[in-house]
Amino acid sequence: IAKEVAKLLEMKAQLGEDEGKHKFVLKTPKGTRDYGPKQMAIRERVFNAIVSCFKRHGAEVIDTPVFELKETLTGKYGEDSKLIYDLKDQGGELLSLRYDLTVPFARYLAMNKVTSMKRYHVAKVYRRDNPAMTRGRYREFYQCDFDIAGQFDPMIPDAECLKIVHEILSDLQLGDFVIKVNDRRILDGMFAVCGVPDSKFRTICSSVDKLDKVPWEEVRSEMVGEKGLSPEAADRIGEYVQLHGGLELIERLLQDPKLSQNKLAKEGLGDMKLLFEYLTLFGITGKISFDLSLARGLDYYTGVIFEAVLLHQENEHVEEPVSVGSVAGGGRYDGLVGMFDPKGRKVPCVGVSIGIERIFSILEQRVEASEEKIRTTETQVLVASAQKKLLEERLKLISELWDGGIKAEMLYKKNPKLLNQLQYCEDTGIPLVAIVGEQELKDGVVKLRIVATREEVNVRRESLVEEIRIRTSQC
Amino acid sequence: IAKEVAKLLEMKAQLGEDEGKHKFVLKTPKGTRDYGPKQMAIRERVFNAIVSCFKRHGAEVIDTPVFELKETLTGKYGEDSKLIYDLKDQGGELLSLRYDLTVPFARYLAMNKVTSMKRYHVAKVYRRDNPAMTRGRYREFYQCDFDIAGQFDPMIPDAECLKIVHEILSDLQLGDFVIKVNDRRILDGMFAVCGVPDSKFRTICSSVDKLDKVPWEEVRSEMVGEKGLSPEAADRIGEYVQLHGGLELIERLLQDPKLSQNKLAKEGLGDMKLLFEYLTLFGITGKISFDLSLARGLDYYTGVIFEAVLLHQENEHVEEPVSVGSVAGGGRYDGLVGMFDPKGRKVPCVGVSIGIERIFSILEQRVEASEEKIRTTETQVLVASAQKKLLEERLKLISELWDGGIKAEMLYKKNPKLLNQLQYCEDTGIPLVAIVGEQELKDGVVKLRIVATREEVNVRRESLVEEIRIRTSQC
Repeated sequence: IAKEVAKLLEMKAQLGEDEGKHKFVLKTPKGTRDYGPKQMAIRERVFNAIVSCFKRHGAEVIDTPVFELKETLTGKYGEDSKLIYDLKDQGGELLSLRYDLTVPFARYLAMNKVTSMKRYHVAKVYRRDNPAMTRGRYREFYQCDFDIAGQFDPMIPDAECLKIVHEILSDLQLGDFVIKVNDRRILDGMFAVCGVPDSKFRTICSSVDKLDKVPWEEVRSEMVGEKGLSPEAADRIGEYVQLHGGLELIERLLQDPKLSQNKLAKEGLGDMKLLFEYLTLFGITGKISFDLSLARGLDYYTGVIFEAVLLHQENEHVEEPVSVGSVAGGGRYDGLVGMFDPKGRKVPCVGVSIGIERIFSILEQRVEASEEKIRTTETQVLVASAQKKLLEERLKLISELWDGGIKAEMLYKKNPKLLNQLQYCEDTGIPLVAIVGEQELKDGVVKLRIVATREEVNVRRESLVEEIRIRTSQC
Repeated sequence: IAKEVAKLLEMKAQLGEDEGKHKFVLKTPKGTRDYGPKQMAIRERVFNAIVSCFKRHGAEVIDTPVFELKETLTGKYGEDSKLIYDLKDQGGELLSLRYDLTVPFARYLAMNKVTSMKRYHVAKVYRRDNPAMTRGRYREFYQCDFDIAGQFDPMIPDAECLKIVHEILSDLQLGDFVIKVNDRRILDGMFAVCGVPDSKFRTICSSVDKLDKVPWEEVRSEMVGEKGLSPEAADRIGEYVQLHGGLELIERLLQDPKLSQNKLAKEGLGDMKLLFEYLTLFGITGKISFDLSLARGLDYYTGVIFEAVLLHQENEHVEEPVSVGSVAGGGRYDGLVGMFDPKGRKVPCVGVSIGIERIFSILEQRVEASEEKIRTTETQVLVASAQKKLLEERLKLISELWDGGIKAEMLYKKNPKLLNQLQYCEDTGIPLVAIVGEQELKDGVVKLRIVATREEVNVRRESLVEEIRIRTSQC
């Protein structure tokens, strides 16, 4: 036993030594992740659906740097500003990683004096938030933004943004969803008629924003207890924020003796009515809910706001369904560009941001639960050989195929076994094998094997590119 | 005059006031840029050519976070480490922006215990270098990397990397180019036989690396003066580094009485010969130059290294051609993954990185010089109306088109003038206009106008999607 213990201690010491040698931690930073090939394949599908939709609506695309001057981001995000990543001061400008794509877009418009633009932007943004990665909440995550900037007739671009959310969520087949809609002017008007002092609008708005997570009683006690609102005002708010519905609710509130007296609320409700008329023409009101509890966190919204939530997880195969909340959000921000323009010139904007990570979490789990085999390459043919000493011939053939535009691979071995080459095709889903052998070389042909059926045909070398093209165009 | 001066002073004061109000600078950070829609269109073309090539060679794709733990990057880049962007210590882990895609790839392989992989990665990297933006040198720039990791027979993956560079540069039609090739083992062997002490290999290698920018005399005086090399050793190096050629040069050096005695050099030359044999089979030796002056800056290379340079600017339209240097580079790095593996297990790798910004600079200038009109959207049809009060009808029609998968736009005005709608098509290159009018609505048709020919045809509403699809599939 003593001997054994000594041996184990020695082994342990050795391990400790190894660890000492490489004392760094082998991981990605907190709240971030790598995307492997399978995950990238799923991600590409989601991106394609989203970008196709943006293009269908005639959007141009731009890109901006991953960091901005720190001052560009200052004063745009309210309480959330503490979540901004700053770069170290290494001399020169003070920089921060972008927090969203909206502020860089506004900076872009002001800097280039653009007064009208419909653009999309798909890129990563950064927030030093508490990550909840299983629920698709990361510190580095993609946003897919579509925005319409310019002075236009009311609610036409706003309605298009909602149509876009509807198209994308339908297309991705994520299950049932609802798009909640409200208007900052209605909220502000509501606060005013409920007796909230002007100075408390923003902080009470933040409390309302929590209603999708906590019950009204808790929000009420925060308003009264922490934020010093009178219980009467809170109760009046309580009555409003529990309302949600469609055109009939808008009509009712337009008749509301208090709200209808408030200029802001009246404007907001009038526009909301117009919005619902346009959404009716688009045939999508079934999924839209005018919801007075929707507040949205960001400071810069000035009009319509909206947020899409998935209603339940349709994925029956998954035992522990991921709980996902909002998958898209946006609204109107008419003042943001003016904050950047030296003369304060305003460019009205409305836009939507699709939160891809949550959508991606759902689809990833769905694929994992199903038996679906995802190919991670597009390779059409493996160039193989049945005998030894044919590396040169494989190199010559694969070069011809590449030059002919065929997606081709070969094993990087001098003399690979045919079985290993065929196994590689099975593993990676390559549908065809082009086999060179002594006899084929003499005859000027290549043996083409169809992996699925094990059928083999001799193809004349000069027709090989065309033959592969035809045989792989069906799928 | 006094009046005029007073006026000017007043104007100046006003300007100063405005500046005071918005005292921030409206710009992107030093060394970075926005990509507008036209630039994005060119960028997409380049990406497509590159990614198509990577896929043609059967590569999978991965993505990694934009920042890594600081220690992940430590000790990988030699003297260039000072160019790494660090993030501010805001509590938690110390982070740095990635400097290239190679080190994150090696970290990915080690972390996931992957021992064999062919992958590409297209992403931005960050270097606090002195930007020279007109020459396509930025602090934030894209790299398009293709790497083959795994234990394979010698020089087969290496040859494929060079084939890839050849395919991409040919495909992009950037004019004549040459791919310089060398091997770190040949360099080290050469230093040894020239009498460079082991401890000076790296720093003398850095001097050699400058030979593409400064003449030999200057490099020699740096070696002797600053780096304390003996004049005799420098002169011996001078003879070698001026050599470049093909297979015959390799053969000659294999017979070189000094070099052939050095184990490293012999190994390197043997592999170089094998590489040239494979490149001959690929038919690309015409653009390959075995060049003893090629050294490459990065620390982690262990074998073959290469760099592609454009020979001259083929663009005759441009008055001041951009001077571009290296547009692609890479090499073998067999030790990098082992630096991350807790047990030091090695995974041999070879890869290439395409420098898109320089290529992009050339193509951007070429497009600007030519009269080529680049479309920045893919919109197939504008939904328009000839009369007033048809907003609702336009919304209904465009909704039908979107749902039918047609890329459609409309002006966000209640009553746009027909002329403005047609002008919008001219400006943005939209080929078709679907015009709704009272009469058409009654007849159940839509008037389809072909912008180029001004031809107009009535199309039954239920066939409109199909008709648009047919008419826009030709282009």
